[in-house]
Amino acid sequence: MTTLDAVLAHADASLDASRERLFDLLRIPSISTQPEFAGECVRAAEWVRDQLAGLGFQASVRPTAGHPVVVAHHPGPAGYKGPHVLFYGHYDVQPPEPIELWNSPPFEPQLVDGPRGKRFVARGAVDDKGQATMFIEALRAWHAVGGGIPAKLTLLIEGEEEVGSKNLEPFLIANKDELSQADVALISDTNMWNVDTPAVTTMLRGMVYTEVTLKAANRDLHSGLYGGSALNPINALTRILGQLQDDDGRIRLPGFYDRVKPISNAQRAQWDSLGFDESAFLGDIGLTAPAGERGYSALERLWARPTADINGIWGGYTGEGSKTVIAAHASAKVSFRLVSDQNPDEVYAQFQKFVNDRLPPGATAEFAVFSRGPGIEVSTDSPWIRATLDALSDEFGKPAVLMGCGGSIPVVTSLRSVLGLEALLVGFGLDDDQIHSPNEKFEQACFHRGIRSHIRLLDKLAAG
Amino acid sequence: MTTLDAVLAHADASLDASRERLFDLLRIPSISTQPEFAGECVRAAEWVRDQLAGLGFQASVRPTAGHPVVVAHHPGPAGYKGPHVLFYGHYDVQPPEPIELWNSPPFEPQLVDGPRGKRFVARGAVDDKGQATMFIEALRAWHAVGGGIPAKLTLLIEGEEEVGSKNLEPFLIANKDELSQADVALISDTNMWNVDTPAVTTMLRGMVYTEVTLKAANRDLHSGLYGGSALNPINALTRILGQLQDDDGRIRLPGFYDRVKPISNAQRAQWDSLGFDESAFLGDIGLTAPAGERGYSALERLWARPTADINGIWGGYTGEGSKTVIAAHASAKVSFRLVSDQNPDEVYAQFQKFVNDRLPPGATAEFAVFSRGPGIEVSTDSPWIRATLDALSDEFGKPAVLMGCGGSIPVVTSLRSVLGLEALLVGFGLDDDQIHSPNEKFEQACFHRGIRSHIRLLDKLAAG
Repeated sequence: MTTLDAVLAHADASLDASRERLFDLLRIPSISTQPEFAGECVRAAEWVRDQLAGLGFQASVRPTAGHPVVVAHHPGPAGYKGPHVLFYGHYDVQPPEPIELWNSPPFEPQLVDGPRGKRFVARGAVDDKGQATMFIEALRAWHAVGGGIPAKLTLLIEGEEEVGSKNLEPFLIANKDELSQADVALISDTNMWNVDTPAVTTMLRGMVYTEVTLKAANRDLHSGLYGGSALNPINALTRILGQLQDDDGRIRLPGFYDRVKPISNAQRAQWDSLGFDESAFLGDIGLTAPAGERGYSALERLWARPTADINGIWGGYTGEGSKTVIAAHASAKVSFRLVSDQNPDEVYAQFQKFVNDRLPPGATAEFAVFSRGPGIEVSTDSPWIRATLDALSDEFGKPAVLMGCGGSIPVVTSLRSVLGLEALLVGFGLDDDQIHSPNEKFEQACFHRGIRSHIRLLDKLAAG
Repeated sequence: MTTLDAVLAHADASLDASRERLFDLLRIPSISTQPEFAGECVRAAEWVRDQLAGLGFQASVRPTAGHPVVVAHHPGPAGYKGPHVLFYGHYDVQPPEPIELWNSPPFEPQLVDGPRGKRFVARGAVDDKGQATMFIEALRAWHAVGGGIPAKLTLLIEGEEEVGSKNLEPFLIANKDELSQADVALISDTNMWNVDTPAVTTMLRGMVYTEVTLKAANRDLHSGLYGGSALNPINALTRILGQLQDDDGRIRLPGFYDRVKPISNAQRAQWDSLGFDESAFLGDIGLTAPAGERGYSALERLWARPTADINGIWGGYTGEGSKTVIAAHASAKVSFRLVSDQNPDEVYAQFQKFVNDRLPPGATAEFAVFSRGPGIEVSTDSPWIRATLDALSDEFGKPAVLMGCGGSIPVVTSLRSVLGLEALLVGFGLDDDQIHSPNEKFEQACFHRGIRSHIRLLDKLAAG
């Protein structure tokens, strides 16, 4: 029996104990957005620290302006030549509300039977306590029977991911010398393709989230006395924003697509081979026909094409019945999901110009921007991603899928921009895990194979 | 001295007493929208009834489901051959709030000096207590020195004009036999062209006020996970409503203009001769350029052309900052001001078709309609309007202007549809009278000439 086999066998034999340790962590209601749970956040951080210290890590709970960050270092074996891996996770969770929709108390983890076998039900079961615990349990198995921690490692487990990680980037900057020693980041906070098929997420969309306000008259006007001669800013705003997309669903900001890379034939073929069921995807949300850009599949539109969505709009009278008013102003929140090399600042400027070029005489436009981050594309031919794909393929007996993600994971951008680290996004959640919703769950099979995958991945990475 | 001259001279000599009687009425806070003032509404109605009874009218305060209506009849002189005139007015007033912006208590009428001489300041000074009182004072002068009430008259003075007159039409229907005996209606609730130039309002716009809701997914969606493939109903709504007008400001509902009569050359010439100062009109509301339909003057757009205004719009996230949501639905309130022969039901159907024809796959639209009334155009060659114009021209020494009004006066529609009466709209307010606002005022000169004009008008109508 190889060392790897012994470590895997230990993990198999320890599954119940691993789950019980996860349940201990799940019992701590570390809800980051509710100030009354700040003490629980500290308790969760200390729990993580203690686990890592028990495995020989130099581990500490480090203060920030918000909830603390756990940082733990291990030098790996003597003479270690492989990459220094920084593992990122978070110990904080979303609030459980609405409580009444839970089938069991959200912070009393349950082991229940589901259609795919045992599952864990609790807030944080998968996001991200379950996923972070898998890595720690992989380390534990190595520590127990594999001769010790097999690689040079830093763990960074934060407590504010669910509230926007606003103190994380300052923390990275303040501790840059310490943290930028790593060679690559590993994050376990994403999904598999399905329960039998592992995945690495290599593309994340970025975003610019803006607000625009059109102003016209200096006060609300009576539509009878002024209608037909006074500029109506709601009409003007719909007229402008109604032109955001052309008849093919392409976004009409001049220059918007200049930095968007075409989808390669290889990429397209790989995604096509996944057999994504678009009608089931849409049917689940009550839609029958896809919207968006013509000429692309649903996965391509979600993972590799940018969007322009109006997330909110308001102006004039919005109460019951009628009021014959011409409003003085109208506003909208407009966000753009960005891909590959699109520059958020450029897109924001393009949007401002798009609106200003269409302003009717007498109107003015005011703009605000709430967030802007670029899309991320992880190189798919680094030695680390090859090691990752091999480890997953060994575990599952089939190739891992390279996925995109329509949303953004801001920490990936921070790790890249502050520490210069590429991120390997290897997660074991499923689409139906109900993260952020009542009855969040994690399949035991995913937890188990996640631990085994991390064991294999550490083996591959350590091999160089 | 003719009888007419004697009556006019009496009115001149009695001006202070006329004003004091108006002030008595103004001291009654007959605010129709505030239930605690219901008793004051009754008091105002009784005050009006008593004035008319004192002039020999058969006058009564008649109940409705809301505030009462005063109805008063007088047969006119023996052997009277002229038209039976129904005079409409209202004794209720708008609330005075915000009180702190008044320079004097709103229900303690003041006689103050203004740039055009004396003026009355109080809630209701012009709208409509001042205007209704002018007619009663004209009757009083005829009664005192003209040999009695000179025409067959019905007065209908309601108490719910400021809250939408919702009980008036039922009252007209219930009392149709009694009230439809009249030949023509006379309403004094509009404005002069300016302080030196009388006006008759002959065109009123109608309106259809609608609400449309676009629905897409069965719940709010995350814009990262669905953006680009899931229909965004706010994007769709702006895309549809953004097409309401073409580049020339013409409304694009098919068939919308089919029943809109062109403006006659005579009408256009008359309005052009008024020298309307469009830049002052717009400058007052902070605008520099007119909006709306190309090829028409501001007055033409306000008085004789239809509009499409979005009065309110809402959907998605409208709070502070950002939320990455794709809403499940989006709504707008859209109203159309109508002219001449446009049919409100047709226009509502045209709007529904306009939206439905542009619905993207997967979207549904729901509609509501809150009000619909046609535009009104009073014939300008009836004997009654000729008598009116002559009376005004005699009083002011210059022709009266035939004006339009961009808004609607619902009672005009009810008088026509229920009682079959055309309305003569002869008012003596000025644009700067601040009706519905703090420091509402009425120029004494307008009040005085209004009384004199009504005296002359009664003389003309009685003649035949």
